[in-house]
Amino acid sequence: MNLNYNKTFTKLKLSPIVAISERAKDSAPAYEKSTGKQFVYFQRGEVGFETPKYILDSITEAATQKKLTKYPKSGGEIWLKDAIIDHMNELQIDSISRDNILCTQGGQEGLELVFKLFEGKKVGAFSPIWCGMIETILPYSSCEPILLPLENKNGELKINISKLEKTIKEVDAFYLNSPHNPTGKVFSKQEIETIAELCAKNKVLLVSDEAYKDILFDKNKHHSLLEYPNENIVSVFTGSKTFAITGLRVGYTISRNKELINLLTKGQQTQCAGVAPIIQYALKTALENKFEKNKWIEEFNCELQKRRDLIFEGLKPIFEDIYKPQGAFYFFLNLNKYLLGTQDKDKYLLDKLLENGIAVVNGGAFGKEHQGYARLAFSTLTQNAVKEGIERLKEAIQKLK
Amino acid sequence: MNLNYNKTFTKLKLSPIVAISERAKDSAPAYEKSTGKQFVYFQRGEVGFETPKYILDSITEAATQKKLTKYPKSGGEIWLKDAIIDHMNELQIDSISRDNILCTQGGQEGLELVFKLFEGKKVGAFSPIWCGMIETILPYSSCEPILLPLENKNGELKINISKLEKTIKEVDAFYLNSPHNPTGKVFSKQEIETIAELCAKNKVLLVSDEAYKDILFDKNKHHSLLEYPNENIVSVFTGSKTFAITGLRVGYTISRNKELINLLTKGQQTQCAGVAPIIQYALKTALENKFEKNKWIEEFNCELQKRRDLIFEGLKPIFEDIYKPQGAFYFFLNLNKYLLGTQDKDKYLLDKLLENGIAVVNGGAFGKEHQGYARLAFSTLTQNAVKEGIERLKEAIQKLK
Repeated sequence: MNLNYNKTFTKLKLSPIVAISERAKDSAPAYEKSTGKQFVYFQRGEVGFETPKYILDSITEAATQKKLTKYPKSGGEIWLKDAIIDHMNELQIDSISRDNILCTQGGQEGLELVFKLFEGKKVGAFSPIWCGMIETILPYSSCEPILLPLENKNGELKINISKLEKTIKEVDAFYLNSPHNPTGKVFSKQEIETIAELCAKNKVLLVSDEAYKDILFDKNKHHSLLEYPNENIVSVFTGSKTFAITGLRVGYTISRNKELINLLTKGQQTQCAGVAPIIQYALKTALENKFEKNKWIEEFNCELQKRRDLIFEGLKPIFEDIYKPQGAFYFFLNLNKYLLGTQDKDKYLLDKLLENGIAVVNGGAFGKEHQGYARLAFSTLTQNAVKEGIERLKEAIQKLK
Repeated sequence: MNLNYNKTFTKLKLSPIVAISERAKDSAPAYEKSTGKQFVYFQRGEVGFETPKYILDSITEAATQKKLTKYPKSGGEIWLKDAIIDHMNELQIDSISRDNILCTQGGQEGLELVFKLFEGKKVGAFSPIWCGMIETILPYSSCEPILLPLENKNGELKINISKLEKTIKEVDAFYLNSPHNPTGKVFSKQEIETIAELCAKNKVLLVSDEAYKDILFDKNKHHSLLEYPNENIVSVFTGSKTFAITGLRVGYTISRNKELINLLTKGQQTQCAGVAPIIQYALKTALENKFEKNKWIEEFNCELQKRRDLIFEGLKPIFEDIYKPQGAFYFFLNLNKYLLGTQDKDKYLLDKLLENGIAVVNGGAFGKEHQGYARLAFSTLTQNAVKEGIERLKEAIQKLK
């Protein structure tokens, strides 16, 4: 049937991670049968930890005792907003009021609404960039990404300041993601300050995706963009990663610009009429119970750091300039030196690794200039599976040569 | 701060019902103090019934036993889709497969996604029309509404077929809502057939909003548009009204056109990455437990019908051509004969009724040509409150003259 569609939708790609997961699921039985070894799934950014019990119990309370089954308040419940304000105070971020906050479906809805508000505009960002941005969120709003590569200098990921300034001058919004998916870079206080200053000077909206703010290694500190009083900043947060609740679909977006939050609230009210109060209650509980929360985050980071160290120690000998992630739960490896002369590097790499019982996400998904890279997530695998995966990856790399 | 926004957002209005509710809340204390009577809130389309216990209990099960806290499957969980297919079979609607279904945040997200797919197009609909459509959903996608009035002939709401044909010829999509908000009209099998035929003939997408499909009086039957095999039909459903779960934000959209559902799924995946599986589980349970479900729907309709009868009997003497709602839970009254010579009819009417301890929604919210009308919802008031409200409304109308 030939209906008169808006063609924007046809440009959207469902995440390549879904397709890779499907291929992995198809490849695994034959691999496991012939080798007697378990397939290793490095592709998924899911949080493979059980959700803390105090959060699960709060959902029961919200449903059966509080019976929070009626329409949500536009923009978010007052009691959730107050818990978020209290949480901001914990982070030494003050002067946030209810009108500065929108409760969203994960961080994703916050990002999607912000870029919908900047429909058709140019958006600057560092590359590699989270694949969801360039595959769905920016195309959905017909935004044009202007990507600026992070530069690997002896295992450090550096910003080229003069190129950054040039990029910010030609865009209407700039997307910053720290801790960074897919590299694990935690931007320094000084880097963040430079970016904030350039955006303010050029009246560019700075969209700060702080989804991984609580996932930090080596006693690194997260610097929220909300530490600045600037009205051209919007920070997007989610409960998903911090509390292993990717499937509750709840987060929050904060800006000191109340007009911006008011517009985003109208957009959300149109799209879905808000987040289920039962789910909002779970986030309130998650944030408010400081003892439970801090204990959980400490254990969670401790386990992730052990996995990171296993991967880093295992791979350092063959990737001299490998970046050691400071936050989030990914490695982004440059395999190009093993792929010289290969035509479609991403496809060849994916195929070869799948044959060897490993699934990763291909680098091109994070920006075309990153073909021949691979993202490894260590959020769903036990330490033993990580060890096994790294040994197998090294074997597979030998076969590429 | 002068940021370079997309102006579409500034055109969105938050529902006038919110503003009216605020005014009612402000007016109520003085009214109640001076008269010793309770303020009567006829404005809200909320479902003022407790959510059935079997649904609340399923949320506990989903959270603490099944621990459904991980990312949803794109488009909806298989077990929910299968429960929906089974429910369709109950309604004698067959040949629906998983690829024909998208699980959404209430019915609203389904509608918003469909019209986003028809961005910038002309959309036909009957007026009066649900206020959310003309205030947010259509403007959000820059769709232009072409409204065709339902004609009240001695208390019957009739379609002018030749005008309908003319309207359908000039649009890309047509919005039909049966049972109808705000009139309570249940479109007859013959009317639906005519609309479906005209849309098919003109290759117009027929968007069937079936939010009130289970709220029916006098043994009326709902005819879903899915009874037709046409690929130009999409039906939007919600759990909100049927199960008194407006705040769970869950529903489903079905079309025999799999490409359409695939595109909507991509849009949803971009906007919010799907509905929380815990919430999907509540809808699955709600639909699947046929004994509990049918008992609840019967009791619910029985109570609503009693309220409807009280209003109808109370108002019939002064509104000769009053339409007797056959479904949903609203009356839409034409008060223009009491407002002759009044400048801003909606404002005057709202003010006068608020002074007399009654809140309604002004008719202009449902289409400009309905200024001087009022929508009364009977979904949140007890029978006693309804009786009191009707007596008071009659007194207030006397004072208008």
